Parts: sequence; structure tokens; C-alpha cells
Amino acid sequence: MKCKKIILKQMYNGFPKKSDFEIVDEDVAEDLQNGEFLYESLAISVDPYIRAYAGAAYKPGDTVIGTALVRVTKSKNEQFQKGKLLVLHCGWRNGGKAKESDVLFVRDDMPASVPESAGLGLYGIAGLTAWVGWILVCKIKEGETIFISGAAGAVGNVAAQIGKIKGCTVVGSCGTDEKVKFCKNIGYDAVFNYKKESESLDAAIKRVAPKGIDCYFDNVGGSFSSTILRHMNAGGRVGVCGSISAYNETTPVLAPIVQFPIVTSELMLKGFLLRSYVSNYKEAYEDLKKWTIEGKMKCHEKVTKGFENVPDAFIDMLRGGNVGKAVVRL
Amino acid sequence: MKCKKIILKQMYNGFPKKSDFEIVDEDVAEDLQNGEFLYESLAISVDPYIRAYAGAAYKPGDTVIGTALVRVTKSKNEQFQKGKLLVLHCGWRNGGKAKESDVLFVRDDMPASVPESAGLGLYGIAGLTAWVGWILVCKIKEGETIFISGAAGAVGNVAAQIGKIKGCTVVGSCGTDEKVKFCKNIGYDAVFNYKKESESLDAAIKRVAPKGIDCYFDNVGGSFSSTILRHMNAGGRVGVCGSISAYNETTPVLAPIVQFPIVTSELMLKGFLLRSYVSNYKEAYEDLKKWTIEGKMKCHEKVTKGFENVPDAFIDMLRGGNVGKAVVRL
Repeated sequence: MKCKKIILKQMYNGFPKKSDFEIVDEDVAEDLQNGEFLYESLAISVDPYIRAYAGAAYKPGDTVIGTALVRVTKSKNEQFQKGKLLVLHCGWRNGGKAKESDVLFVRDDMPASVPESAGLGLYGIAGLTAWVGWILVCKIKEGETIFISGAAGAVGNVAAQIGKIKGCTVVGSCGTDEKVKFCKNIGYDAVFNYKKESESLDAAIKRVAPKGIDCYFDNVGGSFSSTILRHMNAGGRVGVCGSISAYNETTPVLAPIVQFPIVTSELMLKGFLLRSYVSNYKEAYEDLKKWTIEGKMKCHEKVTKGFENVPDAFIDMLRGGNVGKAVVRL
Repeated sequence: MKCKKIILKQMYNGFPKKSDFEIVDEDVAEDLQNGEFLYESLAISVDPYIRAYAGAAYKPGDTVIGTALVRVTKSKNEQFQKGKLLVLHCGWRNGGKAKESDVLFVRDDMPASVPESAGLGLYGIAGLTAWVGWILVCKIKEGETIFISGAAGAVGNVAAQIGKIKGCTVVGSCGTDEKVKFCKNIGYDAVFNYKKESESLDAAIKRVAPKGIDCYFDNVGGSFSSTILRHMNAGGRVGVCGSISAYNETTPVLAPIVQFPIVTSELMLKGFLLRSYVSNYKEAYEDLKKWTIEGKMKCHEKVTKGFENVPDAFIDMLRGGNVGKAVVRL
């Protein structure tokens, strides 16, 4: 079977460039061991963690990591027969060979009303991350004010919807006026464009969270988060999910120190990686399905088309070009 | 009754100076309401939090805050009769009038073997802080490697002894060779002088904690803590107790951002203020007493003499001049 994959050609030097990637042909032998299957990719997910894990989870010469929505084309696996739609940890490939341990999710487990590619966003890593961050890490409570940085992003938009379902006042920040508009449409109580208010960030935070912030979903880190911490209420909780503000920097990034607000407001910060919560996925999916069926949870995507455009979509997402989950349909 | 108190004359501009303080005479009326008592101070405690709370808990013109070991001289309080030794939240005074709610601790509740001033250190705010940080916040476990910054200080020396009692490998950092020697004497497994190893902090940390750090008692904050976080094991816990590195700075202090290690090692950072744990003091005192009586816990003090020297002792402590708890005997 003739397939294509996208490899990291050279290690990123700061912000990824299109020339850091290369599309490579691959011959995949079609003979299958028991449990294996062949697949074609229908959509590929581009996520911030792919930038963060460069040099560790994949190195120059390796296929770029990530998840994809795929259709099984030939199978020696009873569970995953021909035609089955799956979300796979397969990296940036338009097809290939896989086995059960590569499977993140089966399309049949999602409500029929959501697009198949929701398995890459709302029902994928982004949605699970939002659920774990609020439900297990921060333990948000009705009536609390919760703040989401990267408000319009893949994780942020799901986190906001969960917050409203749980009865919280949901506020946040994002980087364009288009995103501010999107956020208001999906239920945020208040949002600001941090790029327009960088000189008066304290005032902007006070405006959207006049009673202070109880929980903070930290997708960005750095100086912005140092400021947010100073606006948190006593006993506040922070789910630290990423630090996208620093992923593309080549020198150590400095920010105002965080210990003073952590002590004086007795804050709890907890970093989390989704892979530590595999045993909770079932509960998360049950919530997400229930909320989807009740009409309280919507899938928001920014779709790019064409396998060759995966690197561009990835770079655009890192620049903040996406509203909702960035996916590439093949 | 003629008393003296030390007031904050002017707000500190960065590092406290002797001229920021003034000794003021005070006439204390000797008539007592029910529940009140008069006292003379025997020893005064100087602690980092006194610097941190300036401008909030006390302002120019106010008596400087703090605890003192006092003897009751006249009483209309059944519980605290004449001659009773108490630790009071009374600020920097050589005597005055107080009531039950000012009492932190009664000397009779300490083992006879410890000096009376232990009520300001091992059995005072410092000892309670060490106990809360390890037992309730970090929940240290046998076999873990635990790191203490400010290793030889008032909190640090008690934290180290608790760590050894709990079966941990106890390591840390301090700022003089004299302190390194003291630390080794009180049971640290390994300690380094961070002022001598500032160019190779990563190497020094790896040397004292080759298996990584499971728990970190953070007394200093800032850039040093950013480095420690990068050496923590997955699931590590940090009790954030203070940020003495920044208390005397007049401009915002920057440090390498902390979010990246927090996420990748799934760290938990928890700030804590002792006043939130009042209901746990009894349990803490029971542990401290038991350990003292068993000979496993010792009281370490640096004693200065004379009420007029309280400001100097405070400044010296902030400069790191103390080994063990800094107290001033009157």
C-alpha cells in the first residue's frame, strides 16, 4: 500500500517553519499479523502539544506525532473491522498499519449528531483535557468565577461549555476580536482580547472578573499567568495544562515570580498530562455524550483541507489562527 | 505601667534599615477588664513574614507585628494567672496588656527540656509551619527525597528533622559554609551553599538529589525555585511557604517560567498560610512534643540580647545571618 507521512526534517529553531517538514512516500506491507489492520486517514489533528514534545516524543527523521480520524480498510482484528471509523495515535500519515493499542477512540461511541472529526476535538484530546482540567484537577463548583486563557481554542471552547453546564461564571482571554465574538456566541460571560489590552491587563481582568477568579485553566503560562494569579481568590485552583507562550522560544522565558500570590492567596497549581487519566476517559465520554445529546455541548472546528497542508495548519494554529479545534480533512 | 514598643517609622524602601524603626514609650493603664492581663516580654521573635506583611498587616505608625514569649504580671483571667509563660501575638513590645485571643501557646504545654523561647521557634510559627508544610501540604512519604531551601533557617531546620523522622532523604541549600556544617550536624543527608554554586546550580542539585526531588519546601521562591522545579520527579509536590528572595525588591522580580516543568512532571504547588490550619495545631504540637521527648527533635536558636536590638536582629535574619531560629532575649 502506497502511503505518505510527514516527517520532521530538522529540529525547529524557535517557531516552526514549513521547511522543517517533509512529505515522504512509504510502502506499507499489506500482510497482517493477528490484531493488526490497515487504515486510510480522513482527518488529522494539529495540537500545541505536538510543538512541546519535539525532541522528546519525536526527533528529526521521525514521523510527526498526533492523532488522526481513520477508516479501517483491511483487518485481522475482530473489534476493528473494515469500514470502522477510529481515532488513532498514528502521527501525520495519510494511511498505514496499526493495532489495538494505537486506538484512542471509536467513532461509534460518539453521538451521531457530531461530525466524525469531533473525535479529534470535542471527543479527542482537547475535550478530554478540558474535562480533566475542570472536573478532576480544579474541581469547579457552581457559582465560581472560572478563567480560561486561550478562550477560543480547541481546549478553551470545550472548557467554557463545561463551565456553563456546571453553573460557573465563565470568563477568559483570546487574541483576536473575531475570537472574542465567537466566545460570546458559545456562552462566555465576558472575554477580552489580550493583545489590545496588554498595557492594562490588570484592568481588563478586573472588568471581566470583578469578584476575582476562583479557578484558572492555564493554557498559556508565562507573564500572562503571573498576572492572572494576582487576581485569584483565596483557595483558588489552577489547572496547568500548557505554556504555549513559551513553546517556540529559543531562550529561557522570564516572567514575574509566582510564589507571592501562591502563598498569600493559598493557591493550588496542578500540572496535568492527559495520559495519567486514562482510567477516567469513560466517565468523561459519558458526560460529553450526555451533554451533546441534551444540546448543551457543541463541536467547534476550524477545518483545513489536504494532507499537504497539515504543516501550514499546524503553524497557523500555533500562531492562534484557529477558532475552535484545528483539524485537516484529507 | 511604662512600656516600650517599636513602631514602623516609615515604609521600607527595599531592604529594611535601622532608621525605618523607632522605639516609642507607651503608658499602659493597669486597670483590667475581665479576661485581660498585663505582661512583660522575655523574648521576641523575628521572622521573614514580618517583612512580607508590611503595608498590609501594619503600616507606618503601627507597632511592628510578631510573636513574643511573655510572663503574666497581673491578671483578671483565670486561665492566664500571674507568672504564667505564654507566646503572644503582641508585636514588638517589652510589655503591655492582652487578652485570651492574643495567646498563641502556653509554655506549660511544651516539654520541660526545651528552652522557654522554643515557643517562638520549634513550638511557634516556624515549627508549626514546617509541620503543616510537610505533613498536610506535601504529605511526605518514607523513602522520598525532599528538598528544603533556607535549609538552616527557623523553618528549614525543623522541616529537616521532621523529614528524617519520616524516613526521607533530606537535602537542601543554604547561603554560608557555616550553615552547611550546621545542616550536616542536624541530620541533612546532603546540603550545598547556593552562593558558591550559582553558576552550576543544576549540577549542585543533581549531586545532592541524584534520584530527583519528590517534595520541595519552598521558602525562597524566584529563580532558585524555577530551577528546583526542573529537577522534580513526576507527581512531585511543592509546599510554597514564602518567597524571601523577593520580599525586599522594589521592582517586580522576574524568574524563568514555571509552567513547563509543572505540566511535564505533573507537579502540584500549594501555597499555605499557617492561620488556615489553626484546627491542626493540636495534632502538630502532639507530634512535636512526642519527638522532643523521644530525643529526635532539637531546638536550634540564634539568640540576640536587648529590646533595642530587635530591628538589627530582624535585618540580620533577612540577610541570612541566623542559623536556627532568630530570637531576641530581653
